[in-house]
Amino acid sequence: MKVLIVGANGLLGSAAATALKERHQVIEASRSSDITVDLAEPDSIRRMFEEVGTVDAVISCTGAVPFKPLADLTEKDFRSGIDDKVLGQVNLVQIGADHVSDGGSFTLTSGVLAREPILTGAAASLANGALESFVMAAAAELPRRIRINAVSPTVLAEATGYHEFFPGFSQVPAETVGRAYVKSVEGIQTGQIYALD
Amino acid sequence: MKVLIVGANGLLGSAAATALKERHQVIEASRSSDITVDLAEPDSIRRMFEEVGTVDAVISCTGAVPFKPLADLTEKDFRSGIDDKVLGQVNLVQIGADHVSDGGSFTLTSGVLAREPILTGAAASLANGALESFVMAAAAELPRRIRINAVSPTVLAEATGYHEFFPGFSQVPAETVGRAYVKSVEGIQTGQIYALD
Repeated sequence: MKVLIVGANGLLGSAAATALKERHQVIEASRSSDITVDLAEPDSIRRMFEEVGTVDAVISCTGAVPFKPLADLTEKDFRSGIDDKVLGQVNLVQIGADHVSDGGSFTLTSGVLAREPILTGAAASLANGALESFVMAAAAELPRRIRINAVSPTVLAEATGYHEFFPGFSQVPAETVGRAYVKSVEGIQTGQIYALD
Repeated sequence: MKVLIVGANGLLGSAAATALKERHQVIEASRSSDITVDLAEPDSIRRMFEEVGTVDAVISCTGAVPFKPLADLTEKDFRSGIDDKVLGQVNLVQIGADHVSDGGSFTLTSGVLAREPILTGAAASLANGALESFVMAAAAELPRRIRINAVSPTVLAEATGYHEFFPGFSQVPAETVGRAYVKSVEGIQTGQIYALD
């Protein structure tokens, strides 16, 4: 398969690329890759697909959300998380649907904060919850048997700087999360949230 | 208790008001009530709380989201649903937290589309999913034992115009949903999604 990974230079994107390169042609894109894309800019997404052509799977490992105590989160903060993590990935699906082969797939990335809270995580929870319900809904309406799932990991074992904010939470190695992307790309399910706790 | 209901003139707001008036002082607000408020305008929320003073419970039954086939939903459509249904209610919580008594509560309104899809419902699913994860997260951070829950009903029995879009879904009478607001206001739980299917 021809697999496009957006956000390929992050921990998750690299893990997805490593896991998928064994059997597939992987094309890497990000704000700073050879193939550049900024999901906040629909024209940039269109240019990326013009460059790479039709693909069999699109993986997105993108999205930044501000972390602040609830009382300090402004409407601008919530909006920033929505724009970057939610609408960026929604744009990728909406524009990408014309560039994915019949029976192809999208795999987005949400996260544990959709289902469990941490201090300073309200904007991230909101964004992840939005994504997971979107995936469920979009799965039912995408054309040509195109599938869509989300990978929703707990904090990464390698992301040591974040561990103190996830006290007692399981930690998952990026390699394990990488296999969840393989499951979504090579599997037959749609509308699923692959939760890695 | 002194209970402020925003969106009091809709089907759900009226049902909440009827159920709560039996034992509580109910203050009704909406875009067109004596006490006017537009949740998209933070200053309007601040003026409302200056007018009504401290309350023991805030209920929100607001939020409009565009319904269109997935392929026709634009970024503007998603943003419109987020602004109106999600950020409006988030604004109400963020500004209202200073105007709710110790141990008081917020009760927001999401909906069945957070957990089950319908054709044309992707923007609504996204908005409702965002709200439900926000409620879970905010519950853990609100100060002074302030609680927050969401009421998440299936299609209303009275909303006959919507029934064809919810084939085979349960329908719930507004009166039943009204009791869920009572449960949230008078109960002791927080971070709960009261799903009425």
